[in-house]
Amino acid sequence: MSKNLTSRAEDYSKWYNELVVKADLAENSAVRGCMVIKPYGYAIWEKMQAELDRMFKETGHVNAYFPLFVPKSLFEAEEKNAEGFAKECAVVTHYRLENDPDNEGKLRVDPNAKLEEELVVRPTSEAIIWNTYKGWIQSYRDLPILINQWANVVRWEMRTRLFLRTAEFLWQEGHTAHATKSEALIEAEQMNNVYAEFAENFMAIPVIKGVKTESERFAGAEETYCIEALMQDGKALQAGTSHFLGQNFAKAFDVKFTNNEGKLDHVWATSWGVSTRLMGALIMTHSDDKGLVLPPNLAPFQVVIVPIYKNDEQFELISKKANAISNELKALGVSCKFDKRTTHRPGAKFAQHELQGVPLRIAIGPKDLENNTVELARRDTLTKEIVEMEDLTQTIKDLLVKIQSELFSKALNFRDSHITEVDDFETFKKVLETKTGFVSAHWDGTAETEQKIKELTKATIRCIPMDNKKEEGTCVYSGQLSTQRVLFAKAY
Amino acid sequence: MSKNLTSRAEDYSKWYNELVVKADLAENSAVRGCMVIKPYGYAIWEKMQAELDRMFKETGHVNAYFPLFVPKSLFEAEEKNAEGFAKECAVVTHYRLENDPDNEGKLRVDPNAKLEEELVVRPTSEAIIWNTYKGWIQSYRDLPILINQWANVVRWEMRTRLFLRTAEFLWQEGHTAHATKSEALIEAEQMNNVYAEFAENFMAIPVIKGVKTESERFAGAEETYCIEALMQDGKALQAGTSHFLGQNFAKAFDVKFTNNEGKLDHVWATSWGVSTRLMGALIMTHSDDKGLVLPPNLAPFQVVIVPIYKNDEQFELISKKANAISNELKALGVSCKFDKRTTHRPGAKFAQHELQGVPLRIAIGPKDLENNTVELARRDTLTKEIVEMEDLTQTIKDLLVKIQSELFSKALNFRDSHITEVDDFETFKKVLETKTGFVSAHWDGTAETEQKIKELTKATIRCIPMDNKKEEGTCVYSGQLSTQRVLFAKAY
Repeated sequence: MSKNLTSRAEDYSKWYNELVVKADLAENSAVRGCMVIKPYGYAIWEKMQAELDRMFKETGHVNAYFPLFVPKSLFEAEEKNAEGFAKECAVVTHYRLENDPDNEGKLRVDPNAKLEEELVVRPTSEAIIWNTYKGWIQSYRDLPILINQWANVVRWEMRTRLFLRTAEFLWQEGHTAHATKSEALIEAEQMNNVYAEFAENFMAIPVIKGVKTESERFAGAEETYCIEALMQDGKALQAGTSHFLGQNFAKAFDVKFTNNEGKLDHVWATSWGVSTRLMGALIMTHSDDKGLVLPPNLAPFQVVIVPIYKNDEQFELISKKANAISNELKALGVSCKFDKRTTHRPGAKFAQHELQGVPLRIAIGPKDLENNTVELARRDTLTKEIVEMEDLTQTIKDLLVKIQSELFSKALNFRDSHITEVDDFETFKKVLETKTGFVSAHWDGTAETEQKIKELTKATIRCIPMDNKKEEGTCVYSGQLSTQRVLFAKAY
Repeated sequence: MSKNLTSRAEDYSKWYNELVVKADLAENSAVRGCMVIKPYGYAIWEKMQAELDRMFKETGHVNAYFPLFVPKSLFEAEEKNAEGFAKECAVVTHYRLENDPDNEGKLRVDPNAKLEEELVVRPTSEAIIWNTYKGWIQSYRDLPILINQWANVVRWEMRTRLFLRTAEFLWQEGHTAHATKSEALIEAEQMNNVYAEFAENFMAIPVIKGVKTESERFAGAEETYCIEALMQDGKALQAGTSHFLGQNFAKAFDVKFTNNEGKLDHVWATSWGVSTRLMGALIMTHSDDKGLVLPPNLAPFQVVIVPIYKNDEQFELISKKANAISNELKALGVSCKFDKRTTHRPGAKFAQHELQGVPLRIAIGPKDLENNTVELARRDTLTKEIVEMEDLTQTIKDLLVKIQSELFSKALNFRDSHITEVDDFETFKKVLETKTGFVSAHWDGTAETEQKIKELTKATIRCIPMDNKKEEGTCVYSGQLSTQRVLFAKAY
């Protein structure tokens, strides 16, 4: 088994990197900045996908698939969007390799197979999708279009970290088209609410819903809604965004429709997405120095049974018991794995399942056979108890619900105790250096102040919370009048 | 609504192209050879994915995700594989765009952002995956590895057709690693059997299981298992392949393991895949001149209810009835859509659902309200009958099972009546020109004869069937001795 992890107190960043690899979630690949998502990590992502997909469909969306490539001329059509992503685009320029005459057995790009127009590997799909929507929309009867896509995207980042920032990542991107501005605004806010609900109820990650300042908006958006989470090290993480795109893309791609009064108008748009970055949020919200801690909703298996035996006879009796428990749990909708590997000792199995965050572990030994009991251990609290076989499966089902809810409460307490109201800039700087977390402070509303604060403290405005109370005050940096506090933090 | 389709008799190819677009399955995009899979088409693909994924997991496989890009040096490591795909590779050479100084408002590839090593967009993932497996495998305890990936791949085809041959397509690719040759062979054949079962039981497409001749094998494989289907126009379509890769990739990427006797050996491999090409097979197996015909297992919704009314009062009564039916069906596990759009007349709705292949259509009009009946129409047979409300939902459930099974039988009869045994080359040519379908003939086993026949007739050896009976004979072309018949056909 793997050696101990670096502790979080010692080096949070190192702890994260080690955990991702040792818990078999992902690893770096031979391709600069691209990751391999390993089966255990992918199984968690599949759980997220399934729940999000269900929520999208419940709110009237359907899935589709658009091309991986965006011709350069389409890519540059919406100016702000193009400008925002141009610096990190992987570009396909050729479509063939040939034998390299100077280097036997090797291949080289065939210079005769240069594309007439370069293709950008999608960093996001607004351009290719709005170019397609142009052909689908003539009348208000064709609206709304409520489409989501599950896809890979590429952004050539220079400094990458597994899940948090990778050159290629997996995500979903919703792209909707509407007849009116208000309908599009409602959609954008609705999807941000869906993300918040998903993060809190499914991932047990408390989030603050808000809107971004102009300088933090998605390139090409008129309003960016977001959910912001707080990691254990006091840094914020943007866990999802939903954009009101106004008529920008409709204008760039000339997408007009006849409204119900017979007049031509440009279509209103939204887009929204969450990505494999959520895996990073999951890890840095719940895990501990022993490894991953998984909310039961996201665990590839919620219960693992480890047999402890000295001979074949004991193994057989324990197996019988384990299979019975497993079947009963399955009937209750609880996933369970009987770890009967003969290649690993119980201690190594315990360590692995702890590292991989299995919410509940059952150990069954000879004593348990005698007493008709099992040992039941909770991953999140690292506590264990002896439980009668009789009560076991219902106990487990209830306990999983409790764990899910307690993980959320714990994270919520942490988050709430890491929001500090600050009214002067000296304290502002000090809080960011020492206590970390969100700083709630007045801001004069200018990009200049925002930029200055960023330069001086590395903190950015994470969001203007949706339910912000209006409050008279003065900007923590400039002293100008302000009507509300915003949330600052250092962020991933 | 769309105008009538070209009939199959008139122009099968045109019929296919029109059907794909008019039934809202897919369309061509702004990117050469890349398609947009529209929501209705994608919903069918999702059904396929869900069932295949279930079958893969049931046979012990897990999902993972590997990078989109393959560095050129890895791509070329397995010589045959590289040679097989080099001519159709999209290649990323740069990672940034910049403002074009000669062309204001436009972007160009930044010449300073050239990659040190070009990246091939994966046409298949053996190379990147085996380079990764190298780090995962040391001992027989690490084997087998049974991984599947759902992904997009790119093969720069010059002549493309929606679903059948596109530059980018969606697929799954299984990549397994084994300690012994026999285990890998069993795996490769097992997955071909999974594909056959899926095609026949789920898609209602009869297939012939076989192995490919050497010249038709996957580049880098030692044996390629396949399932071959027959389309309505008498051309064959390869619906899935499963490859025994021997130790070729293990040798190319130096993947060795210590076996249970303590000796080092190279790992044995398989890979297997099916793609969105199956959408083409689906269409060309079951559909007719009126449009798509969907087996109930694959229909995004199995039943559609169309209300026929003259006033609001009628509409309300019909809606009540429709909702009741819909709920009852849902409880029976049957998906149903109540098409209450006010923007379309019943005739247009009938035409659309016919074109889109909804297996059963219920129409409810004022007469039906009086008589407590509905009109129930079958898409596959284009027949309709009046059914009492009382029996309706169970009738529907049973009928869907029947339709699924009858579609298979019909396709099977067609297929079986289009296999012609031929013993001389004149007849061989004639059959291929007139009757079409599979020609079962003796072949001398040489690549030369295979190639010659292909040149003369455009027919290729689709497969050597798995359950082939041994039979003395002489090659239909060369007259040499032969021990078995093989299946020839023109193919997609």
